[in-house]
Amino acid sequence: MEKIRIGSIGVGRMGICHAESVAYRTPDAELVAVCDLNAELAESTAKRLGARKFTTDYHEIMEDPDIDAVLITNTSAAHCECIKAACAAKKHIFCEKPTGINFEELNAIDAAVATNPGKVIQIGFLRRFDKSMLDAKNRVLRGEIGKVVKVKSVTRDPGKYREYFDKFLPGSGGIFYDMNVHDFDLCRWFAESEVKKVFSSGGVYAFDEFADFGDLDANSVTLQFENGVMGEAEGNRLAGCGYDVWVEIVGTKGSIDVKCGRNTFVVVKDENGIKEEGCPWYWERFGDAYTAEIVAFVDAVKNGKPSPCNTTDARRAVEIADIAKKSYEQGVAVENYHLFG
Amino acid sequence: MEKIRIGSIGVGRMGICHAESVAYRTPDAELVAVCDLNAELAESTAKRLGARKFTTDYHEIMEDPDIDAVLITNTSAAHCECIKAACAAKKHIFCEKPTGINFEELNAIDAAVATNPGKVIQIGFLRRFDKSMLDAKNRVLRGEIGKVVKVKSVTRDPGKYREYFDKFLPGSGGIFYDMNVHDFDLCRWFAESEVKKVFSSGGVYAFDEFADFGDLDANSVTLQFENGVMGEAEGNRLAGCGYDVWVEIVGTKGSIDVKCGRNTFVVVKDENGIKEEGCPWYWERFGDAYTAEIVAFVDAVKNGKPSPCNTTDARRAVEIADIAKKSYEQGVAVENYHLFG
Amino acid sequence: MEKIRIGSIGVGRMGICHAESVAYRTPDAELVAVCDLNAELAESTAKRLGARKFTTDYHEIMEDPDIDAVLITNTSAAHCECIKAACAAKKHIFCEKPTGINFEELNAIDAAVATNPGKVIQIGFLRRFDKSMLDAKNRVLRGEIGKVVKVKSVTRDPGKYREYFDKFLPGSGGIFYDMNVHDFDLCRWFAESEVKKVFSSGGVYAFDEFADFGDLDANSVTLQFENGVMGEAEGNRLAGCGYDVWVEIVGTKGSIDVKCGRNTFVVVKDENGIKEEGCPWYWERFGDAYTAEIVAFVDAVKNGKPSPCNTTDARRAVEIADIAKKSYEQGVAVENYHLFG
Amino acid sequence: MEKIRIGSIGVGRMGICHAESVAYRTPDAELVAVCDLNAELAESTAKRLGARKFTTDYHEIMEDPDIDAVLITNTSAAHCECIKAACAAKKHIFCEKPTGINFEELNAIDAAVATNPGKVIQIGFLRRFDKSMLDAKNRVLRGEIGKVVKVKSVTRDPGKYREYFDKFLPGSGGIFYDMNVHDFDLCRWFAESEVKKVFSSGGVYAFDEFADFGDLDANSVTLQFENGVMGEAEGNRLAGCGYDVWVEIVGTKGSIDVKCGRNTFVVVKDENGIKEEGCPWYWERFGDAYTAEIVAFVDAVKNGKPSPCNTTDARRAVEIADIAKKSYEQGVAVENYHLFG
Repeated sequence: MEKIRIGSIGVGRMGICHAESVAYRTPDAELVAVCDLNAELAESTAKRLGARKFTTDYHEIMEDPDIDAVLITNTSAAHCECIKAACAAKKHIFCEKPTGINFEELNAIDAAVATNPGKVIQIGFLRRFDKSMLDAKNRVLRGEIGKVVKVKSVTRDPGKYREYFDKFLPGSGGIFYDMNVHDFDLCRWFAESEVKKVFSSGGVYAFDEFADFGDLDANSVTLQFENGVMGEAEGNRLAGCGYDVWVEIVGTKGSIDVKCGRNTFVVVKDENGIKEEGCPWYWERFGDAYTAEIVAFVDAVKNGKPSPCNTTDARRAVEIADIAKKSYEQGVAVENYHLFG
Repeated sequence: MEKIRIGSIGVGRMGICHAESVAYRTPDAELVAVCDLNAELAESTAKRLGARKFTTDYHEIMEDPDIDAVLITNTSAAHCECIKAACAAKKHIFCEKPTGINFEELNAIDAAVATNPGKVIQIGFLRRFDKSMLDAKNRVLRGEIGKVVKVKSVTRDPGKYREYFDKFLPGSGGIFYDMNVHDFDLCRWFAESEVKKVFSSGGVYAFDEFADFGDLDANSVTLQFENGVMGEAEGNRLAGCGYDVWVEIVGTKGSIDVKCGRNTFVVVKDENGIKEEGCPWYWERFGDAYTAEIVAFVDAVKNGKPSPCNTTDARRAVEIADIAKKSYEQGVAVENYHLFG
Repeated sequence: MEKIRIGSIGVGRMGICHAESVAYRTPDAELVAVCDLNAELAESTAKRLGARKFTTDYHEIMEDPDIDAVLITNTSAAHCECIKAACAAKKHIFCEKPTGINFEELNAIDAAVATNPGKVIQIGFLRRFDKSMLDAKNRVLRGEIGKVVKVKSVTRDPGKYREYFDKFLPGSGGIFYDMNVHDFDLCRWFAESEVKKVFSSGGVYAFDEFADFGDLDANSVTLQFENGVMGEAEGNRLAGCGYDVWVEIVGTKGSIDVKCGRNTFVVVKDENGIKEEGCPWYWERFGDAYTAEIVAFVDAVKNGKPSPCNTTDARRAVEIADIAKKSYEQGVAVENYHLFG
Repeated sequence: MEKIRIGSIGVGRMGICHAESVAYRTPDAELVAVCDLNAELAESTAKRLGARKFTTDYHEIMEDPDIDAVLITNTSAAHCECIKAACAAKKHIFCEKPTGINFEELNAIDAAVATNPGKVIQIGFLRRFDKSMLDAKNRVLRGEIGKVVKVKSVTRDPGKYREYFDKFLPGSGGIFYDMNVHDFDLCRWFAESEVKKVFSSGGVYAFDEFADFGDLDANSVTLQFENGVMGEAEGNRLAGCGYDVWVEIVGTKGSIDVKCGRNTFVVVKDENGIKEEGCPWYWERFGDAYTAEIVAFVDAVKNGKPSPCNTTDARRAVEIADIAKKSYEQGVAVENYHLFG
């Protein structure tokens, strides 16, 4: 196999980013087809990025024997059916999160994936591909901090996007599914275990309109893993200083901080003190990880490696979100088996 | 009233520190008497620090009408009876934590304090007097971060003192009472509310001998306050880099970190990276706060101010420890009223 | 004018970077032609990046009326003749540093540029285009630190590349021309004035072989600007922790640090202390600036803006290097007019 | 010899600090006498600190055979005569800087010290006794950064004390003598060599009134040491963020930063960015070093160690100041032997 031939399904905001990664920044892959419901966008994108085929019907991508792999980056509601079609067509699959939006879909996806052995299916938990997260993970694997005792993962979105949140979040599934899911995945990844009990707190602290659509603007979720590791996931939409996302892994011999970074390397020292600008938003923090996850996907496909982030990972994060929300609603600690036992 | 005349009861490790603060670093007070069960130590300390009286019997301190205030810094087991005696003698009282070692004692102390109105009784939660903690508190009070959403307080003792822990901790009451009590107090202080529910995790992760005396070497306690503020208290005895103690207060408009600091201002940049030395232990981090709390006590006495940290504060921290331990033992979230309702 | 049509002359290590920036990361430009002495490389690059023309003869680029601008990124020895040819052909020009390698060439370039008015000629002092440097510059322009008092610019290459230096540096012109020239340019840029006096120190401190080819491994150059601003440029090839490059601008009301950054956001805290990894090398620090300078070039061409970094800037930096070397050799402070008056 | 018996000569602002260090914080010493031209102050201080003798005439201190060592902390103008008297009386001597205020006095001091062999004479270059500076020095001595290449020492006083400067600085001897002398001493200390050439820059950048008394508000001094080490000393009175004092020691294998520190450990993150408070002034940065230098003095006296900072050190720093000022006035690099050859 020379270059991995990739078809891109959905080239909206996130899809176009991945399609460009294939075309420009992944030497072992080439973009051969672009699909989008918007015919004009499909065509112009294909031409600009050098893809030979464009279409509004993703089945054309699936049926093309000269396409090795697909990027499923269209609307979340279509992920499940696309995964099923791609499994049927024996493609390698990269799919943006979430894979399924309820447990019926998650179950259907599991069944489909089982029919497509030997193919890579990778889910877009991009934080795992961030250079700093990977470095932290490798240090943990090398035993630099001994055994893991606790993982803390914090996600705080900039409060200044309040109006954007009001528009975007009502259909998002809420903070546990939309935001904490990244933290849950990182906690699982570092803990290397499954969650056995969850306790959640939270509420609406400042953005009253969140109550209108049944969401919280800040929360805190305590996790207990089967191997004894403690976890803490925290999210809010209120961060004053920008995008404030960090992880701490505490071990028996040391700990690792994965800090958030700053907007620039500039420090201003004046009568107001010593000041730096916070990280503006996710793109400035994780922009490179969007490329890295596509490079990793192509590497797995080309070199027969296991998926670095598969559908089970995706399912587990959603399961934890589900338990966490239940804990919040009921005010008690919830055990995993209550839900899935 | 000129200088506040102070008698020091117990001049061991902590007591001598406070006695020297009175003698050397508190211009508005003078050390007039020293009491210690070790007669020689009482005499030599009195002479060195310029106190006119020394004794092995604390009642002599209580009965002396020329003593305005007492420092109760002897063994924890004697705190309750000394507080009762001091209340009866109408003294102002500074007492090291813990005030009482069970709820019977705490109740007795409350009753005694009620008989001594108009006198200051201050408990040694020294972190409240740390310059950085006070600065953070004042910023919160000024509204710099909006309303408080969450308070996180972390205490990690250096793991290299493992042998010392083995000797010292068996009689300490355990991590919830001995260590987290500081974190609980800070959470309450910043939250300005009472705890309504607690969920604890933890275990023995590295120091197996801790299991022998029924203690944990690491834990995590989630707090829900009545006003909705979320709290997280974390403790361990395993810290690799030294004494790792920090607080984060998250608000609706910003957040405040109170960092731990370093051993020096030195940064070494070489083939191993860019390196700083962690804070060695509590003295290097909170040494100045030991002076500050005595200065604050004398200020309250002299100027008729309310105690900055009273017996209710002491009691609440112990109550939270009690609930937290119960939560850990039972594996469920525990509501405050279950215990005290 | 729609998209700026660009021909790339020389697609070696640096040239390919810029050609890709045009093809992939500069929406207002398109790569239309590729020239390289290596015919195969020219062809494959053109095909890969979608350019319609490839050649081994740069005159074909110059003569093409459908090319608006050229990137001169071939060997330094050919820069002068290419600039002259491009000026004669009335192209906009982006040229990597150095423009000319002696004062005869610099004079010839000045003369050529004078014959090509209204066209942009921009030189590759890429640090000016670094997001952090630009932010610092804008802060200075806005008066955030008052009047500039002093500019300090430090460049330290990683000592672990000693063998690479041995191979590469003998033909480089030496530390004053090859390394400090970036610092001189930044000092001029922030000082907004011309140098009037220079005093240099330096020597061979560790890499003895540097003496064999008449170079230094570390130096320090003090600059006095005509407007009174003080400058300090420092370079070495010995940095233990990686690439250590930073700038400080001291003003009458405050100061600005432009720090070097780290390899990742990871901090490891263990028995060895609190540790971060330094920035590996220039690519990790200034990689984005390579794109930014091409974007800025295209913006200047398209929108008729003045060059953000012209041939006079290039010439001045070389002049300062020349004086600085003279000062080092003679052991005295050297005034600018001694050389050029 | 039991405790070192110390007489304190001059208990103004700095003297009282040292006297208290002896009385309270130096277990191996005792304060036995206090001398001050203000009789009342001498008496009250002696009583408060437990000294048996007080006087307005320093000869009474010198003549007292039960005094082992003297602290000369009166006005600078009297230092020379006190040192001579103390040498004649065979006392150990701690003297605040400056020792002598011109070369006549420095010569007289050298002659006096030569008559008092075996006694410790220590000068108050307190930065050498700062915990961080000592740590840096020890790392350099252990070879952690290889051979020293360069030492940079920066002192910036807070600009907000402009009015204080106007009152205090006219009699100070100017920035080279009053401020840079600390930087010169640190450069010598880390370089372990003598200065052979100096080049200075500087001027009045903001505080116009400095010109009236012939002083500068900012400068920069480049030093070349006999062993090839490069030095940079920088001073200004303009710092916006507080007291900004730091040192960098660059070696062949790494470098060491001695940072300035902050007012607290608090970091505020809000819409204005991520902010810390700078170090207010010298006391917050070097307060502990005032105690440490007295402890070191007593240690040297009691244990027969050499002075950690002797009159030669004091003289050299003044000599460098003298050359540096000459360089500034003449606009040329000045060699040491021109002055002292």
